[in-house]
Amino acid sequence: MMMKSIDLKALDAEDTLNSLKKEFYQPDGVIYLDGNSLGMMPRIAAQRVQEVTRQQWGHDLITSWNKHQWIDLPQKVGDRIGGLIGAAPGQTVCCDSISVNLFKVLASALRLRPGKTKIVSTEDNFPTDLYMVQGLEALLGESQCHLKLVNEAELAQAIDEQTVAVLVTEVNFRTGRRLDIEELCAAAHNAGALCIVDLAHSTGVLPVALDNWQVDFAVGCTYKYLNGGPGAPAFVYAAKRHQHAMQQPLYGWMGHSNGFTFSPQYQPADSIQQMLVGTPAIIAMSAVDAALDVYDKTSISAIRQKSMKMTEVFLKLLALSAPCRELRCISPQAAEERGSQLSFEFDHAWGVCQALIKSDIIADFRAPCYLRFGFSPLYNSFQQLGEVVSELEQIMHEKRYLKPEFQTRHKVT
Amino acid sequence: MMMKSIDLKALDAEDTLNSLKKEFYQPDGVIYLDGNSLGMMPRIAAQRVQEVTRQQWGHDLITSWNKHQWIDLPQKVGDRIGGLIGAAPGQTVCCDSISVNLFKVLASALRLRPGKTKIVSTEDNFPTDLYMVQGLEALLGESQCHLKLVNEAELAQAIDEQTVAVLVTEVNFRTGRRLDIEELCAAAHNAGALCIVDLAHSTGVLPVALDNWQVDFAVGCTYKYLNGGPGAPAFVYAAKRHQHAMQQPLYGWMGHSNGFTFSPQYQPADSIQQMLVGTPAIIAMSAVDAALDVYDKTSISAIRQKSMKMTEVFLKLLALSAPCRELRCISPQAAEERGSQLSFEFDHAWGVCQALIKSDIIADFRAPCYLRFGFSPLYNSFQQLGEVVSELEQIMHEKRYLKPEFQTRHKVT
Repeated sequence: MMMKSIDLKALDAEDTLNSLKKEFYQPDGVIYLDGNSLGMMPRIAAQRVQEVTRQQWGHDLITSWNKHQWIDLPQKVGDRIGGLIGAAPGQTVCCDSISVNLFKVLASALRLRPGKTKIVSTEDNFPTDLYMVQGLEALLGESQCHLKLVNEAELAQAIDEQTVAVLVTEVNFRTGRRLDIEELCAAAHNAGALCIVDLAHSTGVLPVALDNWQVDFAVGCTYKYLNGGPGAPAFVYAAKRHQHAMQQPLYGWMGHSNGFTFSPQYQPADSIQQMLVGTPAIIAMSAVDAALDVYDKTSISAIRQKSMKMTEVFLKLLALSAPCRELRCISPQAAEERGSQLSFEFDHAWGVCQALIKSDIIADFRAPCYLRFGFSPLYNSFQQLGEVVSELEQIMHEKRYLKPEFQTRHKVT
Repeated sequence: MMMKSIDLKALDAEDTLNSLKKEFYQPDGVIYLDGNSLGMMPRIAAQRVQEVTRQQWGHDLITSWNKHQWIDLPQKVGDRIGGLIGAAPGQTVCCDSISVNLFKVLASALRLRPGKTKIVSTEDNFPTDLYMVQGLEALLGESQCHLKLVNEAELAQAIDEQTVAVLVTEVNFRTGRRLDIEELCAAAHNAGALCIVDLAHSTGVLPVALDNWQVDFAVGCTYKYLNGGPGAPAFVYAAKRHQHAMQQPLYGWMGHSNGFTFSPQYQPADSIQQMLVGTPAIIAMSAVDAALDVYDKTSISAIRQKSMKMTEVFLKLLALSAPCRELRCISPQAAEERGSQLSFEFDHAWGVCQALIKSDIIADFRAPCYLRFGFSPLYNSFQQLGEVVSELEQIMHEKRYLKPEFQTRHKVT
C-alpha cells in the first residue's frame, strides 16, 4: 500500500536494518506491533534452545556446568546486556525476574542510606515496581521504608533528605513517555539519594548510558525488545562503586563468594555476583544469549533512529486518516521524548485491539482504555505501518470494535 | 557383568520400571548416577521445549498467554507436582528458585507467628537454606529473626516457644539421611511453631505426604529427580489453612489478586497464587510440565521400592569388593532411613570422582571429601550398578585417583 504522501516502500529501501528482519521467524501474514510485550523469536534463539536442551543437557548432562560454562552464563549474558545499556563489564547479571531484582536493589539501597526511609516513585510506574516497595514496607514497617508517589513532572522536587532512592521506569509502559534519567540521577545525588531505574521498555531500543548517567542500580527485562523469550530471566545492574558496601538480602548460594565450599555461613561475593541467588535458569538464559547475537549486527543508535522514524511515520499516517483521529494519542508528540511505542486513548480500545488481532495485526490493550503499539526496529517495516493504519482506518470507519464478540474482556491482553 | 552372588540381570528383568528408561535420552556408554544433581533429559521434554519455542513463541507470539494457557502454567505444573508430594490441588505453584521461594515462606512464617523470632535448622542443611534465614536476619535485625542451628538428632527438642518454624531438608544433601517430617511437624505444632520443609532431594523419588503430615510450607526443586532441566523453576507449597493469613513480602504483579487491572496498590491473591512474583518462565516451565508426563506411567511407591533396592544392592556389591571397603559410607545403613543416594567419605573422593567420570560414570563430589551417588529409578538399571562397582574397584585397586591430572580441583563438580 502506498499511503498518500508518504513513500513507505522507499523508507524500507533505505532502511539499513531491513536485512535483520530475516533473523526472526515471521508467522505468515502477521504484523506484530507488540514487541514491547513479547519480542518475536530470533531464529538463532530457537536453534540455541534446541542445542542446549538436546546436546548440553541431554548428552553432556551435569558436565555442562563446566564444559559449556553454564556456571558463567549469568555474568556473560549480563555483560552482553551491559554493552547495550552503557554499563562497563562486571556490573550486570542476568537472573530472576524484574520484580525479584527490584527487591534486591531496593533493600540494598535502604542499607546504603541508613536512617533514610523514603522511596520516591511515580503513580503510574509499572505496578510491580510499586508493589515491591509496598512489600518491603510491609516487611520492615513504614518507619523503615515508605513509598511516596508523585506524578512524573514532580519527581525531581519530591526527592528530599529523607529519600533513600528515586525509583523510575525510563519509559512509561502506558504513555511511552521517556524520563530524563541523567537529570533525575543528578537530582537524587544532590539530595544524597540513589537512583534506581527500570529499563523494561528501554533495553535494546533506546540509547541508555548507565555509567555515564551515574545510575546507582537498574533492572530490566529480556523478553521485550531483546527478544529473549516468554518469561526469560531479567537482569540487574549495580554500579561498581556500590558493590563492596551493598548487601542484598536474598542470600543465595550463587551469590556466595565461594558457594561450592558449602559453608554454613553466608559470605557475600564482593562483586555483581552477589546479586545472584539460586541456580541459573540455563535453558531460558541461553535463549537470551542467542537473541543478543542479533545486536552484534547493528547498533543501538541505528535502532533508535529507525524507532523514532517509525513512530513519526505512524503518527503522520494516522493524521491523514479522518476516522483514526478519534484515537487520542497519549504519547509525547516529540519522538525524542518517547520510547519505541505509541499509545492511544479510546473508549473502545479493547474492541479495536481485538478487531486488529482478528486481522492478524497484533497490538495490545492496557486497562482501562489504551491501545498500545510497540515498534521493534529489528523486525518491523515501514510498509507494515501503512497496512496497520489502513486496517485501523477501516475498523474505525465501520465501528467494527462494537461487534458483540468484542464486548467481553478476556483474561490477558 | 555378573557380580558374584547377585544376579543383576534378573533384577532388571523383574523391574517394572525398566521400560521407562527409553523415555530418556541416554548418551552412549554413559552411566549416570547424578540424577540428584541434574536429572537426565526426558525425550518428551526436549520435544515440548521445541514446540513451545517454535510454535507457541515463534508462531503464536503474545496470543499464547491465552491460546496455550501460559498464564495458568505455574498453577498447572504446581498441582501436578503436588500430586507427587501428597498435596491436594491449589497449594503448590511452580516458580522462581528454591532460595527465593524459601525467602517467601520464611517471611510468611514470621508474620504468622508474631512475637516469635527463632528459626531452628540443622548445621548441615543445604547452605542456601541457611543463607536465606541469615539474609532475613540481616534485613530485619536479629531481634526479629534469628537462626538456631543444631544437629539432626537435636532438632525436635530445640523447638521451643520462641520458635517461629523448624526449617529442614527431608533428605540431607551430603549424607542422604532422611528425617521423619511427620514427627518434626508434630513437635513443631506442639510448641506452636510451623514446619517448613525443603524437598529438593525427595520430590519424585520419595513418598512425601505434605497434607497428611500437616506440613505448613514446603519448597522443592524440579531439576533433580523430576528431570525438569538445568536451573528449571522450583516450586513452593503453602497449606490451604495459611493462604488467607499469609503475606509473603515479594509483592509481584503475578501474585496480585487481579494483576491485569494494573492498580498501583498491591492486593495479595487469597490463594497459592500469592506466591507468584514476576512473569512465569514459560519455556523452562514447559520442560518441567513435559518431564512430569513420565510420572503418569508409574507411581511414587514403585519408584521408592526400586530406589531402596538399588541402594541396598549397591552397598552389597561394594561389600563384596575388598578395595572398595576404604570408602566409608556416611549414609544410613537402613534403606528406609535414607533418600535415593549413597555417600562415601574418602580423602581422595575428588580424585575417585574424576577417575569415574573419565570412564563415563558420572557421580558427584561434595566438599570436602564426599563421593555421592544418586539413584534414579526411572532410568538407572541394576546392571549399571554392577558396572559402576566394577570400575570403582579397579580405580581403588590401582589408586587411579592419585594421577597428577586429578590433583587440582575444578570449579563445579
